Amino acid sequence: MKNLAYYNGKYDEMENMFIPMSDRICFFGDAIYDATYSRNYKIFTLDDHVNRFFNSARLLEIELPCTKEELKALLNEMVRKMDTGENFVYFQASRAGTPIRNHVFAENGEKANLWINIYPKQIVDVYKRVKLMTAEDTRFLHCNIKTVNLIPAVIASQRAKEANCTETVFHRSGRVTECAHSNVHILKDGAFVTAPTDNLILPGIARKHLIEACGRLGIPVREEPYTIDELMNADEVMISSAGTLCSAADEVDGKKVGGRAPELLRTIQDEVLREFLEETKEC
Amino acid sequence: MKNLAYYNGKYDEMENMFIPMSDRICFFGDAIYDATYSRNYKIFTLDDHVNRFFNSARLLEIELPCTKEELKALLNEMVRKMDTGENFVYFQASRAGTPIRNHVFAENGEKANLWINIYPKQIVDVYKRVKLMTAEDTRFLHCNIKTVNLIPAVIASQRAKEANCTETVFHRSGRVTECAHSNVHILKDGAFVTAPTDNLILPGIARKHLIEACGRLGIPVREEPYTIDELMNADEVMISSAGTLCSAADEVDGKKVGGRAPELLRTIQDEVLREFLEETKEC
Repeated sequence: MKNLAYYNGKYDEMENMFIPMSDRICFFGDAIYDATYSRNYKIFTLDDHVNRFFNSARLLEIELPCTKEELKALLNEMVRKMDTGENFVYFQASRAGTPIRNHVFAENGEKANLWINIYPKQIVDVYKRVKLMTAEDTRFLHCNIKTVNLIPAVIASQRAKEANCTETVFHRSGRVTECAHSNVHILKDGAFVTAPTDNLILPGIARKHLIEACGRLGIPVREEPYTIDELMNADEVMISSAGTLCSAADEVDGKKVGGRAPELLRTIQDEVLREFLEETKEC
Repeated sequence: MKNLAYYNGKYDEMENMFIPMSDRICFFGDAIYDATYSRNYKIFTLDDHVNRFFNSARLLEIELPCTKEELKALLNEMVRKMDTGENFVYFQASRAGTPIRNHVFAENGEKANLWINIYPKQIVDVYKRVKLMTAEDTRFLHCNIKTVNLIPAVIASQRAKEANCTETVFHRSGRVTECAHSNVHILKDGAFVTAPTDNLILPGIARKHLIEACGRLGIPVREEPYTIDELMNADEVMISSAGTLCSAADEVDGKKVGGRAPELLRTIQDEVLREFLEETKEC
């Protein structure tokens, strides 16, 4: 298959898939999701993503229709049907619906609707420098839950594109939180510094693997709030996401940033890329 | 028809309607909506709701596929197909899609997808007292735009139901904003007091008509921030929405509230109900 979609047991190519208009995603964006990449038909960090998906569901009291093992088996089965082994693997669940639109949860005992989309896509070149911009973080206070209530991320991504940037760095009155669809980190005086995992940021899986890589490399990690000023004056500024393992910035809001610890940066990038290639190698 | 749905030119009963899985509503909740009621096949305050809908679209740069006059004609035509004249009239628009999931806007020149749902429903009895609860307002800072990014409203509505309440009053560190799906107002010393229309609340159409009713009745109106303490000690506490023209509360968080200006309250309720009945009378 060139691409593959799934909704509550029905499979087809994505362009042929239709979902009920009464799905709560259509009225409330009442859904959680997660996503990662496959290479050589192996889904990278699948356990981490499935664990986070189940945690998002738990936080919103969305009752998933399957176990973690069943979901992993289904995703692996779907990836194997693809024409290529390099894919974006996206899955989400919308809360069980009510007969007519109603904010409150349904009481019919139905489980959530499970959705999957898989299509060819590769992770980005970790060694290419990117440009960023900044914006006030006006999102809700539940950014630790991976929901499809993503309008502020959509607008920030569009603004970034218009400014020829890869991402928008959000901050709350100067305190850096994360980007529209990535986490953001800095290197300063030999340490890796990243915002703590509170309700202001998504606990990124790539972020977690970056921290683990730093641990293996003996690089100190500080999970603590830092400001836009500290970011502008950092030795390096990096973003991470499922598709962007560790990209460094050379510009923020049109001003030069980073570039002061290129060897340390390269060491970290080499390590996260090594892990990705190793975990998804052909066998 | 017992109910009626519309999506991009296709009509059917709601349970038979399916939408493309790639609609941006499914990935980002990237849609705006509006809703009102009809009686005797007349849609109440349709101009106000269509104007707000177009304003929500403008604020999010969603390009609607029709003019205001075309939308009103379509909604009126659809209401006339219904078995009963008393209906909930709901319409929304999701941003034009990209071939694959991408936060940024599509560049294909396509206009938004237009959705409509109409089904039997009546406004609530304005004279019945309701119970409310309070919760910290953790929503995003774009509450002036009527979007389907509604997870915090869903959770607050569910909590209210569990507490046998009609609505949850949101506040930001004590400052009252609005409810999960209503505005909230107080009567104090003969004046009608309601939060100003900034980015923290939806500019309610029922709120607007309440203010206009107070104007006709010679009741002073103050659009200014007020606190949960002021609400607990107000002469009356009222909520309003398209389906709740002006319901007064007798309890908030299990404590007795209001009931100190029942005549003034009744005068206002009589006036907003009179307007509704007059504007939707049989002819």
